[in-house]
Amino acid sequence: MKIGIIGLGLMGGSIAKALKSQHEIHALDHNPQTIEFALSNHIIDYGYQDKIEFFNAVQIVYICLYPRALVKFIKEAKNDILPGTVLIEISGVKTSVVNALEPYIDNRFELIYTHPVAGREKIGVASSSASIFTNANYIITPLDRNTTKNLELVDSLARSMGFTSVSYLSPEKHDEIIAYTSQLTHILSLALVLSDDQSFETVKFIGDSYRDLTRIAMINAPLWSELFMENKEILLKKIKNFKKTLEKYENCLESVDETQLIELMTAAKDIRLGMEKGASR
Amino acid sequence: MKIGIIGLGLMGGSIAKALKSQHEIHALDHNPQTIEFALSNHIIDYGYQDKIEFFNAVQIVYICLYPRALVKFIKEAKNDILPGTVLIEISGVKTSVVNALEPYIDNRFELIYTHPVAGREKIGVASSSASIFTNANYIITPLDRNTTKNLELVDSLARSMGFTSVSYLSPEKHDEIIAYTSQLTHILSLALVLSDDQSFETVKFIGDSYRDLTRIAMINAPLWSELFMENKEILLKKIKNFKKTLEKYENCLESVDETQLIELMTAAKDIRLGMEKGASR
Repeated sequence: MKIGIIGLGLMGGSIAKALKSQHEIHALDHNPQTIEFALSNHIIDYGYQDKIEFFNAVQIVYICLYPRALVKFIKEAKNDILPGTVLIEISGVKTSVVNALEPYIDNRFELIYTHPVAGREKIGVASSSASIFTNANYIITPLDRNTTKNLELVDSLARSMGFTSVSYLSPEKHDEIIAYTSQLTHILSLALVLSDDQSFETVKFIGDSYRDLTRIAMINAPLWSELFMENKEILLKKIKNFKKTLEKYENCLESVDETQLIELMTAAKDIRLGMEKGASR
Repeated sequence: MKIGIIGLGLMGGSIAKALKSQHEIHALDHNPQTIEFALSNHIIDYGYQDKIEFFNAVQIVYICLYPRALVKFIKEAKNDILPGTVLIEISGVKTSVVNALEPYIDNRFELIYTHPVAGREKIGVASSSASIFTNANYIITPLDRNTTKNLELVDSLARSMGFTSVSYLSPEKHDEIIAYTSQLTHILSLALVLSDDQSFETVKFIGDSYRDLTRIAMINAPLWSELFMENKEILLKKIKNFKKTLEKYENCLESVDETQLIELMTAAKDIRLGMEKGASR
């Protein structure tokens, strides 16, 4: 198939690489150097800076833009999108994006909201890699207006990219789950690094545990600040919930209650071991 | 050299494997099956259940016991230790262990307090691996009574096991640093897993970030509850400090201050990127 990609960043480039062997890849990017790089490295087959030329060439399009840029792009480009085009967006928040975009969507084309739960602590097409999708999770948040045929298309494309689990959720449930599994996780990593008083040369004393917990602190701040802000009410609830759990550990230490401490640790261990068995990766 | 190991668990087994090719390894363990396993898998050269026989065979001994078992063992075995023996303990807390043991130490043998900052989420000699030490950090907390000659011996043995950084700290500074880099890190991972309200099948929605942050929640609870409790005053301070940092992020979200949020994220990112450059691993 002819597959279009809007925005050749880390995610756009990775999707291009994951689909290139089976499909013809067309990409739209505002930066001519990015297109040139992607063409000369055989990441894409055709590159465009003009959206009308691009939309004339493709029927299936992944929009790989940050949430606010995505909303702006669709508002501005909606009349240039050819009838029958399938658009797949991939941002990490859903409710705010759906609410912002749905008033502008008509039946000329079909927009499907999805979230490939994958990434890395790098930015740009040069850091893209198809391997980030291998055995990862993919979430689709279908709306009533979405067609079974095109949802199945998105599902099968995700599996062909290497995703092993494809789940269907409402936008609201997506945002609640992701606030916990992804956003809270990033906030904790950031706060851990920032709570270093730096009175020692930390790097000489860390083990793999600290390295693993803080790797995602090497964050794409402009992207993640959008994701956090667009989902802030739910994220704040998850932070408060986390603090309550943390206080259980504090209480054990303060009251020297080792029995209760071991119980809490064992409960956490059992939950995480259960995930290891069921893990797709 | 003839090297002794007391306690063939994950750490004892890993040290045996890391030193085996260059040295003759003698191990003391209360469990005959563990000794048999280690002998038949060529992890050790000689196995003992009798500590007098063991101490008669070795001059350099790694004591790989949990902190409280270590204290108990030295109190009980001190008269069986041959004059001139070098004992190296490897527990993850120092001040409480030093305070408990020093009254029992005389000049007949030399005890050196150290902390190989390495491990994995498994227990037992069957899970041991020399590779956990490759490019890792090793901390020695020397006392005035320690001799340069034997500190240098411990240093060179650590480097021969694969450690690339060997640092010297006082027991108090060790405990303060480790409370942050290791203990707080483990508490956050445990609390993150336990703050899952489990209303969804979490494993279907996680990415690598959640996997990385929660891997250490598959914890050895009996060992870590000792480590936490023996260092609880400092650990509690680190938890309070972390909560203050977390509140900075909460404040940004509550007041919708995206500029400040990006500043906090960028500060954390820069600190962590700096560690990446200086990282030994």
